[in-house]
Amino acid sequence: MLNRIRIVLCETTHPGNIGAAARAMKTMGLSRMVLVQPRYFPDEQATAMASGADDLLQGARVCESLEEALLGTGLAIGFTARRRDLSHPMLAVRDMAHWLSRELPDEGDVALVFGTEMSGLSNAELDACQRLCHIPTDPSFGSLNLAAAVQVAAYEFRQAFLPEAGTSEPATRPLASHEELEHFYRHLEQVMTDSGFLDPEQPGRLMIRLRRLYSRALVEREEVNILRGILRALTSPEKTS
Amino acid sequence: MLNRIRIVLCETTHPGNIGAAARAMKTMGLSRMVLVQPRYFPDEQATAMASGADDLLQGARVCESLEEALLGTGLAIGFTARRRDLSHPMLAVRDMAHWLSRELPDEGDVALVFGTEMSGLSNAELDACQRLCHIPTDPSFGSLNLAAAVQVAAYEFRQAFLPEAGTSEPATRPLASHEELEHFYRHLEQVMTDSGFLDPEQPGRLMIRLRRLYSRALVEREEVNILRGILRALTSPEKTS
Repeated sequence: MLNRIRIVLCETTHPGNIGAAARAMKTMGLSRMVLVQPRYFPDEQATAMASGADDLLQGARVCESLEEALLGTGLAIGFTARRRDLSHPMLAVRDMAHWLSRELPDEGDVALVFGTEMSGLSNAELDACQRLCHIPTDPSFGSLNLAAAVQVAAYEFRQAFLPEAGTSEPATRPLASHEELEHFYRHLEQVMTDSGFLDPEQPGRLMIRLRRLYSRALVEREEVNILRGILRALTSPEKTS
Repeated sequence: MLNRIRIVLCETTHPGNIGAAARAMKTMGLSRMVLVQPRYFPDEQATAMASGADDLLQGARVCESLEEALLGTGLAIGFTARRRDLSHPMLAVRDMAHWLSRELPDEGDVALVFGTEMSGLSNAELDACQRLCHIPTDPSFGSLNLAAAVQVAAYEFRQAFLPEAGTSEPATRPLASHEELEHFYRHLEQVMTDSGFLDPEQPGRLMIRLRRLYSRALVEREEVNILRGILRALTSPEKTS
């Protein structure tokens, strides 16, 4: 579904931002860029900042108006800083991406529309959008760079449309099982008791703290074997003495 | 808690990226930047790209080694592209941010560590981190710009630590209540029936489709009053005729 999303940049001033936006799009699997009256395009700064995403620049469509840019879309989402004077309800980008992933119309593209670096989208441009969206920022400094805003938006839409692609992956080396860890803890407790370090009559919270430590570490199978090997190595001389 | 997060940039080549990273940090309420052997710093390109976040550059700490940069931290999280040869389990940045928001140690800073533009973090640098993290990207083009990666990471940690700050806000103008909408739908249905547009014996899916349309629109109270005013205006001449 990501191939139905177009990124529309209105009257971008700095060509470097166009290139950086193309790179941001491509990292998240978006490929369709539309430029409304860019000040300079094509431009070598754009190509330099695209850094491997110049295919997106070459495929970019340049339009005379936002209206032209939105032809063929079923939904246009305008990105704007939080403002209190707008009549549209405004969703945070994460909520918007989730909403769209559930409610995507059967037909038509979806446009994510971004305004100029200095002043964002004009009221007329906002009125051409059916939905408004903001990227939550610190209230005292909301000055997102244009390409940075495109990056966060593209990231959120990718996460919403391809949630499985954003999942964490475990280590390739397998983690210790519960039983393996329990064997280790018993071994450790035994060793500490034998050595006098742990008084079984007054154990305190020693084992709990050690369990927490290893639990946080997400110990691998190989590692737990190493730890038990160490315990054996440290204790066997005493046993044989 | 965001004030306990430091962003550590290792051996950054392009000073513009340092400035852009500072701006990215400040938009998300992060303020503590640490630079390990930056190639050029301070530098006018960094200042230009910071664009209002130059206070972060002025406050940045420059270190000779990652070890020095991590002094006083309780946890270091290394950012790296997905790799299959790493022993650590690797979390996606969203999972990592959520995990940290639940498990933040009582003391010590948290470092988010980023490597060079060309090759990321070295194995030795990764080994200095207790956790590894990746930003999900398109498998065919994972080339995130350094400042863009800092932007997404800072955004995710802000969202995880200040979830209420990232919520969507309704329009300042109140939405129509359920009852107001139902009055409108009944009014509309009546008007369509009276006009012969809707055959009550064979209503088909007309009302359902109209309800869906207005439901999607999130109609405001004022707007529903306007709509009903239109219905009244269009039908009262007939009634009085």
